[in-house]
Amino acid sequence: MSTLFTNAWVLTMDPAMVEHANGWVHVEGDMIKALGSGAAPQIAGAELVDCGGDIVMPGMVNTHCHMGMSVFRGLAEDVDDRLYRYILPLERKFVTAEMVRVGSALSALEMIEAGVTSVADMYYFETEVGHIVAQSGLRAIVGQTLADFDAPDHKDFDRGFALTEELAETFADHPLVSASIAPHAPYSTGLDAMSRIAQWSAEHSTVPVQIHLAESQLEVDWAREKHGCSSVAVVHQAGLLKQGLIAAHCLHLSDEDIAMMVQAGVGAATNPRSNGKAGRGIAPVEAMRRAGIPVGIGTDGPMSGNTLDLFAQFAPVSMFAKLLAGSRKPLPAGDVIRMATIEGARVLGLDRQTGSVEPGKQADLIRISLASPRLQPIYDPYAVLVFAAGPSDVRDVMVAGRWLKRDGAVQTLEPKKILRDAMQIAQAFKAEMTRIDGEPM
Amino acid sequence: MSTLFTNAWVLTMDPAMVEHANGWVHVEGDMIKALGSGAAPQIAGAELVDCGGDIVMPGMVNTHCHMGMSVFRGLAEDVDDRLYRYILPLERKFVTAEMVRVGSALSALEMIEAGVTSVADMYYFETEVGHIVAQSGLRAIVGQTLADFDAPDHKDFDRGFALTEELAETFADHPLVSASIAPHAPYSTGLDAMSRIAQWSAEHSTVPVQIHLAESQLEVDWAREKHGCSSVAVVHQAGLLKQGLIAAHCLHLSDEDIAMMVQAGVGAATNPRSNGKAGRGIAPVEAMRRAGIPVGIGTDGPMSGNTLDLFAQFAPVSMFAKLLAGSRKPLPAGDVIRMATIEGARVLGLDRQTGSVEPGKQADLIRISLASPRLQPIYDPYAVLVFAAGPSDVRDVMVAGRWLKRDGAVQTLEPKKILRDAMQIAQAFKAEMTRIDGEPM
Repeated sequence: MSTLFTNAWVLTMDPAMVEHANGWVHVEGDMIKALGSGAAPQIAGAELVDCGGDIVMPGMVNTHCHMGMSVFRGLAEDVDDRLYRYILPLERKFVTAEMVRVGSALSALEMIEAGVTSVADMYYFETEVGHIVAQSGLRAIVGQTLADFDAPDHKDFDRGFALTEELAETFADHPLVSASIAPHAPYSTGLDAMSRIAQWSAEHSTVPVQIHLAESQLEVDWAREKHGCSSVAVVHQAGLLKQGLIAAHCLHLSDEDIAMMVQAGVGAATNPRSNGKAGRGIAPVEAMRRAGIPVGIGTDGPMSGNTLDLFAQFAPVSMFAKLLAGSRKPLPAGDVIRMATIEGARVLGLDRQTGSVEPGKQADLIRISLASPRLQPIYDPYAVLVFAAGPSDVRDVMVAGRWLKRDGAVQTLEPKKILRDAMQIAQAFKAEMTRIDGEPM
Repeated sequence: MSTLFTNAWVLTMDPAMVEHANGWVHVEGDMIKALGSGAAPQIAGAELVDCGGDIVMPGMVNTHCHMGMSVFRGLAEDVDDRLYRYILPLERKFVTAEMVRVGSALSALEMIEAGVTSVADMYYFETEVGHIVAQSGLRAIVGQTLADFDAPDHKDFDRGFALTEELAETFADHPLVSASIAPHAPYSTGLDAMSRIAQWSAEHSTVPVQIHLAESQLEVDWAREKHGCSSVAVVHQAGLLKQGLIAAHCLHLSDEDIAMMVQAGVGAATNPRSNGKAGRGIAPVEAMRRAGIPVGIGTDGPMSGNTLDLFAQFAPVSMFAKLLAGSRKPLPAGDVIRMATIEGARVLGLDRQTGSVEPGKQADLIRISLASPRLQPIYDPYAVLVFAAGPSDVRDVMVAGRWLKRDGAVQTLEPKKILRDAMQIAQAFKAEMTRIDGEPM
């Protein structure tokens, strides 16, 4: 199967940030075969896609997500005790393999709509998540969460490891989906379990590790009190601070923490909407990037950040850096799009496969329509993407040469069925919330 | 002409925040005649609009904008000297009545697309802006800017007043468009001119005043150095701090400034994206509102905030309040939607006409489709609007009973012609920027 995109504004996101204003891209099978400017070559048998001047760029990389949680989206917003009053009771009662399948399908649908082509997920019943993303056609790292609290799918760490091994075996040979192990966070996993995970991880070197790190003041206080150091140092002590670790949030970092992360080869996933909505603070994205830590953009779960498109994160990630510095200059729009593509791919260890439009890479491509009056005129395509575009401007999405969205329509999932299933689960949640609200506080 | 919306999720934004989950709204001529829950009444001759469960709510109020500047959108982003290197030279060379017409038409088109039904504008050649918004069908306050620099349409204040008087006469009897006088900012207008404007304003009591206020550290320093007080105090000294003043930005306010503003009856327009992108800081929105200052949401000009939809401002306005407080609780989603509707209308002095769905008010209504997977499931419609919805979800827009957008299509303007004209102006800008870049720095 061969596809030729013509008449495209190609943003390659290659190391030189080459653009082809009147460009073409030739896809052969699952790979990008060639690209260039001007007259496109004749490719016998290729499907021709005249892009009419639209942007063609690498698909976006969502470096931190909890896909199963889309059924919790927007629940108990602005409530300080939402976690203990609503969310934990609802999770204990309702998080089943079936709920995770429905939530993950809704999330996959939304991400395809919005031009996300790769995602790093961590939640429960993660083998189910893997099956859903495989069906959707997305590229994904699916992480089984391990935590020292009453998790919905494991009562103890032995069972957690068993689930992770089952996950790793199931997707061992999958071209797009790979398994990951995800200690929830330093404070909720603990030093001993993290050490055990580090050992497991050393024996399973192809399985990346994900963790929530330096996310809250609570975590900072826990590490200081219990271990007399930062939570980054606790993770280091456990042997988990190592090449390829995907560290989500990274809000509360000292210069020493950053230096440790650089030396270890850790990547960060920043989630500005989630952090901002929780009033937790602003991640030192510029400081991390200057020090040499690759920083990708994450949406966090839909209960924390609501949507799963990266567009909604772009203005916050940019504004937060400019507000920290008191200047317009930090984190220019081109850098934000780097973070959303090739730099995010590097954080996930996928930068040899995806994140830029270069010959030999996987054909993970999206096409952005520039028809909306909101996007015109255009002086800088990166500024348009960061400050004006949205999910509704994504017209086509391709992963490994397969169309996931074509002319605005998702090809691999059934939107109506997914929405119906999600609304049914939401009804059960609402009934339970009404019951909780009827109880004495 | 009579219209009956049925099967709607009506968010009235009335004082009790009444919702009709299975509601109807009856529009007669330019007014809302009645509304309710359950079975809709039979209205002979009424056009029936079955909303299929979509949200119907008051049109949104953009309390601060420079519509003419959409042709500058995204130009020289992330550049510290953009103002002096590009923007002022481009404004001096290119800002003509024709450019303002094209820019304002593009902005009106974008706002109608996005469900904005009322706007407060301030720019140059404002009579032209008035004609464009009148044609578009938007409700608008159009403010002639007066400034002590080489403004594109007046060399001195005498000419500035003459333009304002022409503007006020032109729209004296217009049902939707009203004139305003807009001293640019304390530092760029000066005490004497502001005093003269205050006097003019007292003689023209129906003409509201708009001003940029407490926007930058530069302004704070200017006021302190030149007048030994805050810039709010300078405006007060000039006699301009009075009932109905529309003060845009209001970033740098002391408690005394806030107290002065409350006592004077001033309204504020907060522009979080513009402030955040410039790295200027976070406005004390919660402090102003607690003190009793009505605060509306503004987009600022498209050169500062890029888009003119309020959706893009919602997450920033909410996150900024939560980050200032270090908590999830401040500025709940319902309050953000109040600011975008009835509270914004109050800032503009239009709250008797618009901003809520109540019998006797003008029929300024919008319908939001809930079909996107990004919006589902729904626990709280305000959270959906604030954290997940976007301009592409706006299906219908009505102002004073007239359809401006129907089933996704703008009814009153010619999108293709407007986009063609805007792109042509952008070509001239690009040529001039290339010339500037060729000059020695």
